[in-house]
Amino acid sequence: MTAPDEPTDSTDRTDSNPSADQFTVTPYAVEGEVDYEKLLEQFGADRLTDGQIARFPDHPLLRRRTFYAGRDVDRYLEAAETGAPHAIVTGRGPSGPMHLGHVLPLYLAKRFQEETGATVFVPLSDDEKFLAKEQSFAAIGEHTRENLRDVLAVGFDPEKTRIVVDTADADVIYPIAVRFAKHLTPATVEAVYGEQDTVGLQFYPAVQATHLLLPQLVDGRQPTLVPIAVDQDPHVRVCRDIAAKEALPVDKPGALLGRFLPSLEGPGKMSSSGDAPSIELTAGPDAVAETIRTHAYTGGRATLEDHRETGGDPTVDVPFQYLRYFFEPHDADLERIATEYRSGDLLSGELKEIAIDRITEFLDAHQRRRAELGSLETDLEPYRLTDRERRLALERAGVPSLET
Amino acid sequence: MTAPDEPTDSTDRTDSNPSADQFTVTPYAVEGEVDYEKLLEQFGADRLTDGQIARFPDHPLLRRRTFYAGRDVDRYLEAAETGAPHAIVTGRGPSGPMHLGHVLPLYLAKRFQEETGATVFVPLSDDEKFLAKEQSFAAIGEHTRENLRDVLAVGFDPEKTRIVVDTADADVIYPIAVRFAKHLTPATVEAVYGEQDTVGLQFYPAVQATHLLLPQLVDGRQPTLVPIAVDQDPHVRVCRDIAAKEALPVDKPGALLGRFLPSLEGPGKMSSSGDAPSIELTAGPDAVAETIRTHAYTGGRATLEDHRETGGDPTVDVPFQYLRYFFEPHDADLERIATEYRSGDLLSGELKEIAIDRITEFLDAHQRRRAELGSLETDLEPYRLTDRERRLALERAGVPSLET
Repeated sequence: MTAPDEPTDSTDRTDSNPSADQFTVTPYAVEGEVDYEKLLEQFGADRLTDGQIARFPDHPLLRRRTFYAGRDVDRYLEAAETGAPHAIVTGRGPSGPMHLGHVLPLYLAKRFQEETGATVFVPLSDDEKFLAKEQSFAAIGEHTRENLRDVLAVGFDPEKTRIVVDTADADVIYPIAVRFAKHLTPATVEAVYGEQDTVGLQFYPAVQATHLLLPQLVDGRQPTLVPIAVDQDPHVRVCRDIAAKEALPVDKPGALLGRFLPSLEGPGKMSSSGDAPSIELTAGPDAVAETIRTHAYTGGRATLEDHRETGGDPTVDVPFQYLRYFFEPHDADLERIATEYRSGDLLSGELKEIAIDRITEFLDAHQRRRAELGSLETDLEPYRLTDRERRLALERAGVPSLET
Repeated sequence: MTAPDEPTDSTDRTDSNPSADQFTVTPYAVEGEVDYEKLLEQFGADRLTDGQIARFPDHPLLRRRTFYAGRDVDRYLEAAETGAPHAIVTGRGPSGPMHLGHVLPLYLAKRFQEETGATVFVPLSDDEKFLAKEQSFAAIGEHTRENLRDVLAVGFDPEKTRIVVDTADADVIYPIAVRFAKHLTPATVEAVYGEQDTVGLQFYPAVQATHLLLPQLVDGRQPTLVPIAVDQDPHVRVCRDIAAKEALPVDKPGALLGRFLPSLEGPGKMSSSGDAPSIELTAGPDAVAETIRTHAYTGGRATLEDHRETGGDPTVDVPFQYLRYFFEPHDADLERIATEYRSGDLLSGELKEIAIDRITEFLDAHQRRRAELGSLETDLEPYRLTDRERRLALERAGVPSLET
């Protein structure tokens, strides 16, 4: 099942161009190859313009169009440019250890926070993961605590960041979700998400809508951008519909829609499929090297002679794609690597070592910050909603209080 | 639409014996006349035996079989007799002011608490009422606060009583409900409750299951009895199924199943239908007298002469039924009233005045205690779950905490 270091037949690597009915994208299932242009059409979202990309803080994930589309992006950019309040919501479903791909949107959000002062909300949907996965609540709780350490290690500004956990912050989350659930019919949820196994998952879209509107409920009306893989767009659309139906002091949340990171095993294997080999955030240098060397799908040729003569294909080479997505921020350096690979001067094994170095460097810094954390409770405290913020959010959402 | 003081044709009053398909009983709809024996068969509950009734604290609601059936009643009685922990759960859906009929189960629970030391849990389902009714959250909140004052006026022992409000106690209720929701398929909820309009109401049975198991989660495993109108039995059955599927330190909750109190307008008009005239707990003596005199359906005859000659029918006379259900605790006195009414010595108007006196007396005491309450927040505090109890309940339910 693992891709050999020596590349396989190149016909495996050509992109097919599937028709709409050859792939399915919902928050709970990604099947087949994804046609990202078709998805925009299907979802009714807008492709990012060059102008919009130039107005965002510079970041490889945007510059190279991993995030390639959005909703209500201009309103967010305007606030970010004028210093008006603006927020990012980027969550995590704690069903296991966090992998490299999971943390990249968090680092993007941190960049936005540093550059334009964006407020960042990070909701952890332990309720959904407990309901959706064959795991005990205790196991989900353990993943939640470990994931929280990774979120903290990103180094967000506690003054401008709130981390919420659905069960631990249910005092705020549930009453607001009840309000939103009044607009959500079983038919809507089934149409958008497909049939659900339990009434818990049927209710969950109301919780997700709460996540996306929480920055505005806590801090007041402001443009909110939700950077997510395109398969999560239904959550945003449901929330936008709810926001439009409510007479609450909130605007519809915007979205920044991204492509899936490629699986280590190459195209056609989605990183969200779960079983694929991947690099955990706790992986040491040896584990990173071993994983990349053993599992990463390459765009090299079948033999050394062949490769030297015809060159490799960076567009399907996973180590190259990792560099392109995130780990080689300099376009000139990335272009040089691509050129050398295409010419056959750079071998697949050598390209892998470059990726290993960059990833190891990134993880080393992340792990150093993670190791410096004290007890989770103490370190999380400055990022939790204050009592005043909880009251304000419930009040803005029109949830009645026992006090008059 | 209102029943005249002078009785109507007696054929209106004879009980029909409807077949099963002539009535529908779910927690959200009661239609047609109810055949209480058929319901037991249909629901698979047991009729209370004379022996069981004798073992309960003496109370007209039981002695006269308004509560006429149950589930796992013996286990509860054994604990109550031996001084082992045992609990009652009796809730309130705060969709409007509380009426006479709403408060009677609370007074029954108080009697059990006084006689055998039962722990009493009173959940207020403001989430469900907001979802099920065409009312704003603010309106439901106002009803909740007013209803809480009535619950407090009953005079439960704060050491042995906990009052929870779904939104205000969501920190405990929601995470536990999520756990239970994992067992609840949309198909089960639809089969038991019928089709629901929103995903909020689809989720609600998991919240109700939480209510019924909360005494055991807070205070440890113990027989729990839920005195409810028979139309609420599906909630208990769903909860029993969930409890049986979970490896949690709880037993399946038992039930004490009751008949509906008759509407003031007489048989065939269910008191839960909502629009019927009724006596609010805040009604003064004049309002009580006016309501009974104007609206109460009587079992008297069409003319004074007729009544003196053939006598009245107490079995359909609503003022008499009020006395029988609750307000005339002494069997001898009740029998004397019935005899005099049947003989024609007691007129419908006179019987009404007896009921007016007793109800006024009851309400006067209730209202006196209600008026003595201070701020809701202060008076409710001793009845709310303590921080320790919240932690314990979440822990017993296996909900993970952020602390290790």
